[in-house]
Amino acid sequence: MTVTAALRLDPARLRARLEGFGRIGALPGGGVCRLALTDADRAGRDHLVAEMQALGLTVTIDRIGNITGTRQGREDGPPVMIGSHIDSVATGGLYDGTLGVVAGLEIAEALNDADLTTRRPLAIAAFTNEEGARFAPDMMGSGVHQGALDLGAMLAVRGIDGAVLGDELARIGHSGPAPCPGPTPAAYLELHIEQGPVLEREGLDIAAVTGVQGISWTEMTIAGQSNHAGTTPMGLRRDAGLAAARITLAARALAQTFGPPLVATVGVLELSPGLTNVIPETARLTVDLRHTDADTLTRARAQLLAEAEVAAAEEGCALSTRSLADFPPVAFDPALVARIETAARARGLRTGRMPSGAGHDAQMFAPNCPTAMVFVPSQAGLSHNIAEHTEPAQLAAGAQVLADVALDLLEGTP
Amino acid sequence: MTVTAALRLDPARLRARLEGFGRIGALPGGGVCRLALTDADRAGRDHLVAEMQALGLTVTIDRIGNITGTRQGREDGPPVMIGSHIDSVATGGLYDGTLGVVAGLEIAEALNDADLTTRRPLAIAAFTNEEGARFAPDMMGSGVHQGALDLGAMLAVRGIDGAVLGDELARIGHSGPAPCPGPTPAAYLELHIEQGPVLEREGLDIAAVTGVQGISWTEMTIAGQSNHAGTTPMGLRRDAGLAAARITLAARALAQTFGPPLVATVGVLELSPGLTNVIPETARLTVDLRHTDADTLTRARAQLLAEAEVAAAEEGCALSTRSLADFPPVAFDPALVARIETAARARGLRTGRMPSGAGHDAQMFAPNCPTAMVFVPSQAGLSHNIAEHTEPAQLAAGAQVLADVALDLLEGTP
Repeated sequence: MTVTAALRLDPARLRARLEGFGRIGALPGGGVCRLALTDADRAGRDHLVAEMQALGLTVTIDRIGNITGTRQGREDGPPVMIGSHIDSVATGGLYDGTLGVVAGLEIAEALNDADLTTRRPLAIAAFTNEEGARFAPDMMGSGVHQGALDLGAMLAVRGIDGAVLGDELARIGHSGPAPCPGPTPAAYLELHIEQGPVLEREGLDIAAVTGVQGISWTEMTIAGQSNHAGTTPMGLRRDAGLAAARITLAARALAQTFGPPLVATVGVLELSPGLTNVIPETARLTVDLRHTDADTLTRARAQLLAEAEVAAAEEGCALSTRSLADFPPVAFDPALVARIETAARARGLRTGRMPSGAGHDAQMFAPNCPTAMVFVPSQAGLSHNIAEHTEPAQLAAGAQVLADVALDLLEGTP
Repeated sequence: MTVTAALRLDPARLRARLEGFGRIGALPGGGVCRLALTDADRAGRDHLVAEMQALGLTVTIDRIGNITGTRQGREDGPPVMIGSHIDSVATGGLYDGTLGVVAGLEIAEALNDADLTTRRPLAIAAFTNEEGARFAPDMMGSGVHQGALDLGAMLAVRGIDGAVLGDELARIGHSGPAPCPGPTPAAYLELHIEQGPVLEREGLDIAAVTGVQGISWTEMTIAGQSNHAGTTPMGLRRDAGLAAARITLAARALAQTFGPPLVATVGVLELSPGLTNVIPETARLTVDLRHTDADTLTRARAQLLAEAEVAAAEEGCALSTRSLADFPPVAFDPALVARIETAARARGLRTGRMPSGAGHDAQMFAPNCPTAMVFVPSQAGLSHNIAEHTEPAQLAAGAQVLADVALDLLEGTP
């Protein structure tokens, strides 16, 4: 790792770049709103292209709008890719996604400063619509790039505001000519904030991310009977809300029974007609289950569905269920995960391993090339929140570990 | 009861009058929408005034829009009043309220047919905005009539559609000159559908209503912390939805512990932000508690609040509560209740006693004059529903009992 050790990043420059993006789509109270393919996202994209060009990178935009800036290597062949995204949720922070992209820019600039040409090309990528907040599904650009999602279908997706994705892409001038799927890199790396409280709680600076939890989203609709809250004796009720409350608590109990890393969340619970003096006729809820092991996740979901059936039946209600999402767990490349851990420890950083509870662009590359991620702490575990924060020293540490492993890959044997 | 026994009602005419009102504001699938002071309500009111005039009644409209048709007695002095309402909820049935008014019209017509002049005057009243579906609070016209609600304040009430009540009253031509509060009658009687399943389940034709349950509405707001459903370990969550689910089940358990007639209903439960992959930050729910005894209702509410505090605290959430409504129980006149029971049994009807779980115009009169109600069964307990139904024979039986008791009062000593 001779070359690696020589590369010095500039933490102040990294932070200034982050703040530069933070001014684009800035919200009055802090944070940003750069929903995918809005004018704010266009401004962020144009700023990114300008930054890449200023660093001498060759910029390409593909048909789904992914932006890639490539720094020439001594040899041709697939690049080492550092990627993430610059789109945000409606009330996003400064770090989610953007950190990974600006860390790539900082590495490119540090290589320029050191006047180094690496053996392999370095590609820095910002993928379209990672958040999925305006257009579903999320991780769209990376999914299309790696052939997991169909380009035509994605261009036809209609957003929450009725806009068609392909139209918006053309409108903001980011429908590029590069083909999709795109070329698979030699390796893929991504630096991201944890978006959870584990690193902070355990006093760690860095996590080598072992993979991404599998995600199962189930929508449950419970049909009871609405009736007058005053005139209907308790024993004659078919209260959809009571069944929903029981299922909500059953989901939490399931997570406690299975133990970590199973997490279960009821984020949506709607009653109809939703009046103070009317027994709920229907309830709709969603259960978000996540686990790193596919079989365990399948077993947990089956158990929850069985318990929900019992709860609904005991309340005299009918249950129908629908799968809204079902992503199997993704394992990152064990050798690359180990290399991240080793590099972080070599820098004297408090380092652990953990799976990601959230989805990331990296998971789209994992089936096709050696892939891994670096996590830095999120203060109080907050993310998708304007109060999202990571200490500057931790940002710098994460970027340095990313740089160390990236340069090793850039110089390593093919 | 010589006079009483002589009065023969015409069940077909009663039913035809009900169906006549059912054509006003009729919904495509059945039932009616005559929200208070809408054009449909105006059409119902104009129809009622015409019917009263055709029967030779003296029609007055007061400043809150209550319509009263009076049939002269042999003596002056306060009338025996038969009242209810003709406004409806948005998806109302044919019977709720309207039955009580058309039963009064049928009694007046039967008196005309028999060419009888009773000792006391008979007043038939339709009160404004009993339902409270467009303008809050409910039982508004009867409340103003009996001085429990302030006329000026009620005229200024803004509805769910932004309209001001007094403006709407003037617009539809039903802002009358008669003063409010109005004169207290010698006695008040009301025939109404049960709006619950008890009579049907117990195989009864008639209930002598003993009073109206006290009602306590509490809004609870639970403040937790939103966080990522994938990245936040179960043990580090402050999930407002879990606290809400616990309180929902605690309300039902409370009703089971206290036993009948306590009923507890969570009709509203809203989560925010309400996204599948976000732990709920806040939950808002309402608890509707009802009981016939004021002290028991107070104790039940206090116990629920204490349990809600514990549930919220155990989930790391903050609870705030607000009383939305607090109506003490109303007891009807025991002698009049007994007279209804006796009259019904004298007709060979299967008769019981029960409190009303719903509020009625009668409760506004109960503090001021002898008051009681007659209930007839609601098929499947359905009300506030276009499928609301009562068998014709049961409608006729209820009207006959009402007539028997009314004529007894109309002829009785002051």
